[in-house]
Amino acid sequence: MARVVVHVMPKAEILDPQGQAISGALGRLGFGGVADVRQGKRFELEVDDSVSDEALDRIAAELLANTVIEEYSVTRVESSAS
Amino acid sequence: MARVVVHVMPKAEILDPQGQAISGALGRLGFGGVADVRQGKRFELEVDDSVSDEALDRIAAELLANTVIEEYSVTRVESSAS
Repeated sequence: MARVVVHVMPKAEILDPQGQAISGALGRLGFGGVADVRQGKRFELEVDDSVSDEALDRIAAELLANTVIEEYSVTRVESSAS
Repeated sequence: MARVVVHVMPKAEILDPQGQAISGALGRLGFGGVADVRQGKRFELEVDDSVSDEALDRIAAELLANTVIEEYSVTRVESSAS
């Protein structure tokens, strides 16, 4: 089995209301010094070693991310294959 | 300025309906070989170099994560400080 992490973040040019809401809350809670916050998603997948990088990329692009407004990255974290 | 990444994931013992929904969808879309999917959040913060590790940990624990059901990790990715 292999462990794969997929990160999905809003594209830089896309408005991130969640991130802005957190930035505002940080100020109200007295946490200074935070210039910007962006919020995205993190997926951890347990996959067979037979699953190819190409299949993982398709999973990320077709199901986990909305590629119109989001960008994604796929990283194999561990693999039991030698 | 420093860039900090905070990952927030559901604790292992907590039911993850979103992850299970994705697992099910993957099977229906013909993607085999995926044993488990867990979904969490990723935050990217731009912070002044004056913001301490202790302040970052409080931000993660008090605002970004629900520590009853979630675990978090805080990582400084870049720092302009020499």
